[in-house]
Amino acid sequence: MPADLSVLAHPADTRIVLVVLDGLGGYADGQRGTELEEAATPNLDRLAEAGSSGLLHPAGPGVTPGSGPAHLALFGYDPYEFQLGRGALSAAGLEVEVKPGDVAARANLATLSPEGLVVDRRAGRLPDHEADEVVALLREGVRIEGVEVTFAHEAQHRVLVVMRGDGLDPGIVDTDPQTTGVPSVTPRPTPDAVNPADAEHTAGVVAELDRQARRILASHPKANGLLLRGFDSHQELPTLADRHGLTAAATAVYPMYRGIARLVGMDVLGPVADLDAETTVLSDNWLSYDYFFMHHKGPDSAGEDGDFEAKMAAIEALDAVIPDLVDLAPDVLIVTGDHATPSQMAAHSWHPVPVVMWGPRVGRDRAERFGERWCLDGALGRRPSTDLMPLALGAAGRLAKYGA
Amino acid sequence: MPADLSVLAHPADTRIVLVVLDGLGGYADGQRGTELEEAATPNLDRLAEAGSSGLLHPAGPGVTPGSGPAHLALFGYDPYEFQLGRGALSAAGLEVEVKPGDVAARANLATLSPEGLVVDRRAGRLPDHEADEVVALLREGVRIEGVEVTFAHEAQHRVLVVMRGDGLDPGIVDTDPQTTGVPSVTPRPTPDAVNPADAEHTAGVVAELDRQARRILASHPKANGLLLRGFDSHQELPTLADRHGLTAAATAVYPMYRGIARLVGMDVLGPVADLDAETTVLSDNWLSYDYFFMHHKGPDSAGEDGDFEAKMAAIEALDAVIPDLVDLAPDVLIVTGDHATPSQMAAHSWHPVPVVMWGPRVGRDRAERFGERWCLDGALGRRPSTDLMPLALGAAGRLAKYGA
Repeated sequence: MPADLSVLAHPADTRIVLVVLDGLGGYADGQRGTELEEAATPNLDRLAEAGSSGLLHPAGPGVTPGSGPAHLALFGYDPYEFQLGRGALSAAGLEVEVKPGDVAARANLATLSPEGLVVDRRAGRLPDHEADEVVALLREGVRIEGVEVTFAHEAQHRVLVVMRGDGLDPGIVDTDPQTTGVPSVTPRPTPDAVNPADAEHTAGVVAELDRQARRILASHPKANGLLLRGFDSHQELPTLADRHGLTAAATAVYPMYRGIARLVGMDVLGPVADLDAETTVLSDNWLSYDYFFMHHKGPDSAGEDGDFEAKMAAIEALDAVIPDLVDLAPDVLIVTGDHATPSQMAAHSWHPVPVVMWGPRVGRDRAERFGERWCLDGALGRRPSTDLMPLALGAAGRLAKYGA
Repeated sequence: MPADLSVLAHPADTRIVLVVLDGLGGYADGQRGTELEEAATPNLDRLAEAGSSGLLHPAGPGVTPGSGPAHLALFGYDPYEFQLGRGALSAAGLEVEVKPGDVAARANLATLSPEGLVVDRRAGRLPDHEADEVVALLREGVRIEGVEVTFAHEAQHRVLVVMRGDGLDPGIVDTDPQTTGVPSVTPRPTPDAVNPADAEHTAGVVAELDRQARRILASHPKANGLLLRGFDSHQELPTLADRHGLTAAATAVYPMYRGIARLVGMDVLGPVADLDAETTVLSDNWLSYDYFFMHHKGPDSAGEDGDFEAKMAAIEALDAVIPDLVDLAPDVLIVTGDHATPSQMAAHSWHPVPVVMWGPRVGRDRAERFGERWCLDGALGRRPSTDLMPLALGAAGRLAKYGA
């Protein structure tokens, strides 16, 4: 592959659709197959039968990726060359500006015990209207000298925090301990902080923010604490137009994925509330774009909850909209995941992610159903997620011939 | 994959066991399947049925590796980045110190014809007690001005030679012609010797050593010559603790493999005389380590002898200890080879090496037996041996999530 694929970018009146089932991948165990294998997916099976299947690894063998690197890889960006923190992602999704010098972080509203131990990292997945009220309390109550703090509610227990002031550095550790029964982590600089003195100052700001949040939320029955992670600063990425000559659009119910799309220069369509709305908005804008990214969060949420049946159902919900996408006659239709979220682990994992590619020039292989075990038979083989974009560009006639 | 996996190293109370059947790989021909396919391996088959299988290539397509690079690859070290001569390996296995400036080489006791042609490169695989006497003769008889020569008996016909003196350089060709019916190769510098003048001097030292050895051993009926290979100098490698955050231990009957293990910072358990002893010592030290490397030489020795049935039997012997390893409840149990040694070739080869990985989070694939042809159905696919360590670390929960 050329180091810079953009040298081959070639205009064409063709359309690529990438459907991402977040956390799609799973693993079979002694009891049963993966969630995708067990789900009833007649429409996805038809794509597999007529198209080409395979398995993707988003970030290298054995490595479990976060949502940022996993999506960047699907868009053709090496996730080790282009690095993104969760804070920057969330900010982009919420349309909160992060300027050079600002520090952004993702926060969970959490339940703490009277002794300050984490009881529930997600405060029972607080409903949006309750979370909105809690965020309003923080917005009104938190005052830190020399630092302007912005709170923005994302969804359920998820909140974005942006700090603006002099001498801030994102090189501090997460206060989220990622487990329960322990106190939150005391803010401190990471060993690789760019400016250790600024990181020390920032750690102090975060400690004060934490103290004030506990005071303000002390009487709330569920959301009485804040756990922060993914401290990050302003980021600038090349766009899909720059890299691949694509005019691209995205639809996603969850803000963070709209944010990732914006960071690579996609227009965000919508707002959309569900899969049907995503399909409709895509159809309505069909002639205006070359590339559509459609995000479906359900499988990941269910996987993270350890709910095998709910993950199956979320996959089946996506299956139901496939005929509408097929009716649009895309030149390339891809259905895959960003990473695996096996419900046995209730977490992201390193397991490979099934992919199916369908379109008039994609080719048909032996795989006759869509699922990990059948993908092993597929013509796409096992490959890095970053291969997907060049494969799609090729199948859409959007790469010039290399050499004479 | 990140350039440096150590940035993701993540402590966990989990255990990985890597069982290496030396020379495991083979190839099927018109007569029958590979040695592994034909062997009766009910316990390995059960691992394959419940776990994930695949095929490894140790050093790239078509390349036949020596034991050093083949093992380094299994431990996650790029065998082209980290280079080891056989001399350095043998020295480490025999606990003979190789200091900076020393040159070490592996020697075979060999049978030469009266005309000086190689008749048997291994002197009939001289029994240890006979070889010990021959080595004692060399130790007493060889005297080279300005150079201190150390002889250490490894096993059977294999001897380590370490030269210490001023102006030595390991950049000289092997004197072992690797075949019979020809004379040994006249020592001379390689084109890439670091210091050509020193290499010229070293070639002279080796020529003198060869002359004296022939004189001293002239009357021995079998071992009347020395064939040297793998000239090497002092080596320093990063440890498994540095690279992967692993506290590692090794068991091996053959010294060279203990040596490789020591070179990457493993503790060597034992001494052990056979597979049962290896299993026992592993069990006795179960709680003290994160990673266990267990080496079984039998398949390679039989393969090098061109003995298909003996290689099958050596594989079956390993199969018999699998239940004891499974009883230890490792988080990841891997059984594979370092390289192929097809008995049809009576030599190492480039053929891929079957691998099975088993553990609670590894996942199950369609492969229901352990052997090359079934590994083609496996979820691990065909991949470099260097992928094995990150896959094992991932499945053992020992890699942090990459990115938010």
